[in-house]
Amino acid sequence: MFDKILVANRGEVALRIMRAARELGVKTVAVYSTADKDTLPVRYADEAVCIGPAPAGKSYLNMANIIAAATTTGCQAVHPGYGFLAENSDFARACADNDLVFIGPAPECIDRMGDKAAARETMTMCGVPTVPGSDGVVESVDDAREFAERVGYPVLIKASAGGGGKGMREVHAPEELADAFMAAKAEAKAAFANDDVYIEKLVLRPRHVEIQVLADDFGHQIALCERDCSIQRRHQKLLEEAPSPALDETLRRNMAVAAVKAVRAVDYRNAGTIEFLLDNDGKFYFMEMNTRVQVEHPVTEQITGIDIIKEQLRIASGEPMSCADEAPFVPNGHAIEFRINAEDPENGFRPCPGAITRFDVPGGPGVRVEAYVQAGSVISPFYDSMVAKLIVWGRDRDEALARGRRALSEFNIEGIATTIPFHQAVLENEIFQRGEAHTDFIEVTGL
Amino acid sequence: MFDKILVANRGEVALRIMRAARELGVKTVAVYSTADKDTLPVRYADEAVCIGPAPAGKSYLNMANIIAAATTTGCQAVHPGYGFLAENSDFARACADNDLVFIGPAPECIDRMGDKAAARETMTMCGVPTVPGSDGVVESVDDAREFAERVGYPVLIKASAGGGGKGMREVHAPEELADAFMAAKAEAKAAFANDDVYIEKLVLRPRHVEIQVLADDFGHQIALCERDCSIQRRHQKLLEEAPSPALDETLRRNMAVAAVKAVRAVDYRNAGTIEFLLDNDGKFYFMEMNTRVQVEHPVTEQITGIDIIKEQLRIASGEPMSCADEAPFVPNGHAIEFRINAEDPENGFRPCPGAITRFDVPGGPGVRVEAYVQAGSVISPFYDSMVAKLIVWGRDRDEALARGRRALSEFNIEGIATTIPFHQAVLENEIFQRGEAHTDFIEVTGL
Repeated sequence: MFDKILVANRGEVALRIMRAARELGVKTVAVYSTADKDTLPVRYADEAVCIGPAPAGKSYLNMANIIAAATTTGCQAVHPGYGFLAENSDFARACADNDLVFIGPAPECIDRMGDKAAARETMTMCGVPTVPGSDGVVESVDDAREFAERVGYPVLIKASAGGGGKGMREVHAPEELADAFMAAKAEAKAAFANDDVYIEKLVLRPRHVEIQVLADDFGHQIALCERDCSIQRRHQKLLEEAPSPALDETLRRNMAVAAVKAVRAVDYRNAGTIEFLLDNDGKFYFMEMNTRVQVEHPVTEQITGIDIIKEQLRIASGEPMSCADEAPFVPNGHAIEFRINAEDPENGFRPCPGAITRFDVPGGPGVRVEAYVQAGSVISPFYDSMVAKLIVWGRDRDEALARGRRALSEFNIEGIATTIPFHQAVLENEIFQRGEAHTDFIEVTGL
Repeated sequence: MFDKILVANRGEVALRIMRAARELGVKTVAVYSTADKDTLPVRYADEAVCIGPAPAGKSYLNMANIIAAATTTGCQAVHPGYGFLAENSDFARACADNDLVFIGPAPECIDRMGDKAAARETMTMCGVPTVPGSDGVVESVDDAREFAERVGYPVLIKASAGGGGKGMREVHAPEELADAFMAAKAEAKAAFANDDVYIEKLVLRPRHVEIQVLADDFGHQIALCERDCSIQRRHQKLLEEAPSPALDETLRRNMAVAAVKAVRAVDYRNAGTIEFLLDNDGKFYFMEMNTRVQVEHPVTEQITGIDIIKEQLRIASGEPMSCADEAPFVPNGHAIEFRINAEDPENGFRPCPGAITRFDVPGGPGVRVEAYVQAGSVISPFYDSMVAKLIVWGRDRDEALARGRRALSEFNIEGIATTIPFHQAVLENEIFQRGEAHTDFIEVTGL
């Protein structure tokens, strides 16, 4: 195991990684922007190095400064968290060039799965179902039209280099196609400096179901049950649960087998997530692979007992994963994660940075809190607005729902508005209670 | 299920019961002394009734005021928690006389198990091993001497009505016997208004291992794995874990069978705990039964997934327990509870009540906090000094130890001293790390 690692991130994921490292006896080095110098992860780490000012381009995306911080403090490895440089293969290569272990997959895997069209091709080759789509980049409106007429409308135009909904357009009728195609290309160019787009059949009212995978250097490749992340606003996940209310044992096994096929196809190592769309007929389609740990990883931890961050460290340090013999997993109970953002649900979810004057968290059985703030913390306007995650566990979904309601009511946060009232409304919604939410839940319910 | 219950207690157990009730949709009424009027459980409950001033004799032990509070607020049941009136059969009868369900066993069970000598007789009758002891009360020094010579020194003189170490004397040699006998009787008379004593063979260097039981009105009588509570100071538990590092599967099964025999012998209903002494040869002896929920119940909850307080409410309301089919339990991982008292380990564990100016609690995976205080709370000098419990869970004992170390380091409590440094010292102790602590741990280590 490593002696010391650098955590190339901020906020709750930085603290989460440091906690896992501390339990393994691994020292940690925090990096921080000047805007973050008084935050909890900076105090929590054994050492801390300033890497520049906000915004992220000058600090959390500044590879040279981060690599320098790691080498000068004698770190052996770098954990990228999620976001920022977590899926940047150049950063993974820069780590290797400086004798630092990148705690994640090989740069080639990041590249192969990061390019959406290439990832689709890989999946098709190894027999993992994908949404019927163009074989790679679509060059012209005419080619787009030909494809759409072959698979039938509606279709979805997506940026090859995309993510977070940017460069994405739904097309429900032939007359919308040309405008949507050009708009997607323009948006992709602006966001990713790359205007390649591809087209897929649009799956109507899908669920977002994803499989957590782990793979090590000893040939262990396992799938850790699924997460249902259908509750999204503009392609941003808000609440996640595990297992999915939509899966039975057969479908769970089939999706796990598909996920492990994907892992084998690219000889993937470390933690990753295969995202699928699940339609109303129980058919599932590969959407993309995230080659990093995800915000919602705790719900999987709660129903398996596995500490995914510790497994990442074990795998990256050349040890076997500690849970290889436990797959296939039968989910133990049910877990739900609520992302608590400093946003005002009364005002269109507008971010509301500022000083937190009081921050009392829930307690008692089945309650896990991942927060990087305390009373006296100041939320910076420079970064995303997530300040905490509440994860609840119950022996079954009903207990998890009741515990979520109970725990959310125990938060006492003063000084900023949060999305807690939104989550309370979700828990009172009958569609959600019945486990029947699709990705259109927010549109359908108006929440 | 009940619509509304009264919680006849204070502090963390009052909050624990209210949380369980809230998850079941049951309204709660808090009772409080004037000294406790600003505490968290009083704010948490749906209603709150003042039942008198401190000390407890005028409020939390005032049966008439508590019963009046329950009837005037329309409660259907009373949960006594632990301590105060929890093992008082007169209170259980007073509840019944006022058409209130006492959430616990029948008064006859409380009486039968509350008298230590009678409990021993019951256990012997049903084949549960007890420490070789006098058959009931020992009347004279001569009778005591005769017994001690028959079973061999050392022996233990205990008050029949006793608890918490009062009226208890170890006798290691014949010349100590007469003085110890008279001293135990005098102390028993002063503490319990009853100077009856009995004598047992003293088990040298035992472990304290106890079995949580549940029994309902539908014939389900189950044992929920064991807790090891060997870390004690003057017979007060400080830290508990589950499962016990001393048990193998066979011993676990044998102790569970003995516990269920005890439950059947007295037709016990609701939650209870059978306490055993375990000697170095793997022989175990019935010590006593606690006819109520215990401080350390959360470690069992963590390794079984069962919410013991909810099961108490289900059973008392006439429902079957929800976990009858899951016995016998295989422990899922390992849990440790640390009792965090407002005491100063630097000054002989002297209680230090006062105002808490800051109270940041640990978070992250495998961490459960049961606290009834927050920043701004004031610890009253009138009650016991426990302000919080930290419970950690790990996939195995090593992970639980590492997590305990990590979580204890995250507490940030200002304004009062606490026993956190003591727990940190226990975790660094090699005897404890090896799982070899006996009830003499504090004497042996000087912690």
